[in-house]
Amino acid sequence: MDAKEISKAVIKRLPRYYRYLGELMEEKVERISSNDLSKKMHVTASQIRQDLNNFGGFGQQGYGYNVEYLYTEIGKILGLDTIHPMIILGAGNLGQALANYGDFEKRGFRLVGIFDINPVLEGISVRGIEIRMINSLPEFIRENQVEIAILTLPKNKAKEMAKVLIDNGIKAIWNFAHTDLDAPEDVIVENVHLSESLMALSYNLSQYRNEHKENKE
Amino acid sequence: MDAKEISKAVIKRLPRYYRYLGELMEEKVERISSNDLSKKMHVTASQIRQDLNNFGGFGQQGYGYNVEYLYTEIGKILGLDTIHPMIILGAGNLGQALANYGDFEKRGFRLVGIFDINPVLEGISVRGIEIRMINSLPEFIRENQVEIAILTLPKNKAKEMAKVLIDNGIKAIWNFAHTDLDAPEDVIVENVHLSESLMALSYNLSQYRNEHKENKE
Repeated sequence: MDAKEISKAVIKRLPRYYRYLGELMEEKVERISSNDLSKKMHVTASQIRQDLNNFGGFGQQGYGYNVEYLYTEIGKILGLDTIHPMIILGAGNLGQALANYGDFEKRGFRLVGIFDINPVLEGISVRGIEIRMINSLPEFIRENQVEIAILTLPKNKAKEMAKVLIDNGIKAIWNFAHTDLDAPEDVIVENVHLSESLMALSYNLSQYRNEHKENKE
Repeated sequence: MDAKEISKAVIKRLPRYYRYLGELMEEKVERISSNDLSKKMHVTASQIRQDLNNFGGFGQQGYGYNVEYLYTEIGKILGLDTIHPMIILGAGNLGQALANYGDFEKRGFRLVGIFDINPVLEGISVRGIEIRMINSLPEFIRENQVEIAILTLPKNKAKEMAKVLIDNGIKAIWNFAHTDLDAPEDVIVENVHLSESLMALSYNLSQYRNEHKENKE
């Protein structure tokens, strides 16, 4: 299986397939046709068939997809079959909320450390994990073979600290800081810009309001 | 100005322009050419010119863009020039983190209420705002003219409670629940599926690892 030529659009949709298949498993559904899956997910059946064909196609004519098998295989493609030791850098509200959000653990993302630059936070525990200072970061990353860092520092500290993370071997940054990071090509940055998402919502709300007003006039 | 025909791709980029222009203002930059802005944002200058031309074009040949003017105008397009009363439904870790995140207030998103369905949380205050129970929601939405709700409930409660929000007049839901909501066309849903973002990161990390391994072999 050569997954390298798969388009970004397909990859973006994979976690959604994974979520729906997980729900089907919870409902004890063993197999599903692309048509039924299509109705559930509000995408066309041909899109589903095309997407899954990228990975060799998991369906059988007249049988549909085996839910558990497909769930497991997509999980492998997404790298969820291995344990990912992960740290959080930034133990403020958002960092602590993410630390307390146990759902990631179920998918192999194991939070092993929380770091901050504010000495006031040193030694406080979140979900049994002690907040450490940045000076112990290099050794910690090495010893725990940490590959993923969640960055929840304010934007004025984020770029500088991202550099520290990368220099110490972090391979992927889940960036919640309200800024773009400068990372070399071999470091993966996945941005969650919450403010931008809220602005998109606000834009759509304004548009709706304007249209509504025009229709009234 | 007719903003209705603007493509989704352009709209997605607007908050990013807004962020960069805000940073330029903090740095006391008064005007900037599309070339300089292009270098800063790592997009082409022609893309910038095209995007901004959708709104009538704000630049002047040989002068560039007036930073503050452009910032203000994009803010208006994004609906940031009005106050949006907002509630959070779901006062767990993520809900409380978002409540404590004061940055939204600066852009007109004013948190006026926090609600939950768990009676244990009733009366507890977050950033001075008391957590209320769902039975007081209808009256509260009406009295405070709330249009936006942040939904941070677990997925098994989210769909049902989204319906309650919509039935009581909420016009836009910022959905952090790990599920897709069924909303009528005139209700805006902006999803933040954190788990899916983390899976995309994990996928890219696996791909990188595989390629790296192949190169070594």
